[in-house]
Amino acid sequence: MIEMEKIILDPIGIVHSPYFDQANTPRQSIASDEVGEIEIFPEYEKGLRDLDGFSHIIVLFHFSQNEGYSLDAHPPMETQVRGVFSTRSPRRPNLIGMSIVRLLEVNGCHLKIQGLDMLDGTPVVDIKPYTPALDDRARETVKVGWQAGMINQS
Amino acid sequence: MIEMEKIILDPIGIVHSPYFDQANTPRQSIASDEVGEIEIFPEYEKGLRDLDGFSHIIVLFHFSQNEGYSLDAHPPMETQVRGVFSTRSPRRPNLIGMSIVRLLEVNGCHLKIQGLDMLDGTPVVDIKPYTPALDDRARETVKVGWQAGMINQS
Repeated sequence: MIEMEKIILDPIGIVHSPYFDQANTPRQSIASDEVGEIEIFPEYEKGLRDLDGFSHIIVLFHFSQNEGYSLDAHPPMETQVRGVFSTRSPRRPNLIGMSIVRLLEVNGCHLKIQGLDMLDGTPVVDIKPYTPALDDRARETVKVGWQAGMINQS
Repeated sequence: MIEMEKIILDPIGIVHSPYFDQANTPRQSIASDEVGEIEIFPEYEKGLRDLDGFSHIIVLFHFSQNEGYSLDAHPPMETQVRGVFSTRSPRRPNLIGMSIVRLLEVNGCHLKIQGLDMLDGTPVVDIKPYTPALDDRARETVKVGWQAGMINQS
């Protein structure tokens, strides 16, 4: 067995969201019009320069309300159990989520975003610009496995 | 100042790549046709079930060759310094990279992938299916800030 070092992350910010309860939170950003805020901690503010030119950002965050994981996932609207890495289940070995959200405004440390699917208090790990030239692979032939034909792919 | 707990990640796998040197590694998956392998550790193999139906996967990984970070990024082909969160620079506060790669084959714990932009030995943190319905936002109006008009957006 290969032994690898653990990786330690320090949150760079926090989500302010109207969602306090996992059961009522949209499972995906694409299914949400909700507006909220990411507050970046002051020591990182300088790194937000130039971000206001982008309409969409990729947010990496910690599924901090989850503990433990399962290699079996039970996606909503899906009758079969699926391998966790073929789903977006929050109960994954490393509790890192990814959302693509609209960036409405940057005001100092405060990012006003739309398309919230994160709980209030969620720790933010990274912000990356959404760049179609890198991130839009729909132009290539794409197979979507067990999700084929589902209306709400998740 | 808000104090948040550190997040500890345990790599789930490792990249086997022909790239051993950052200077010769493609900066983005989209600029690479190189084939390589992700080896998932045996204890997570069951979580790979159903992944073989997907043509593309999202790989979250650790920029393990980088230490420290800068809030100023110097993207290649770009004359101005940009805020790190408006770039894909590997020298970010949390050293997590994201690549979308083609999945050619799943053989037990071994994922044969194409579009390598990761160094040999890179620790893998998560695998998620690439789902155009969630991840392709090019259909929405997208602004790409300082990258507008650049050929190789990075």
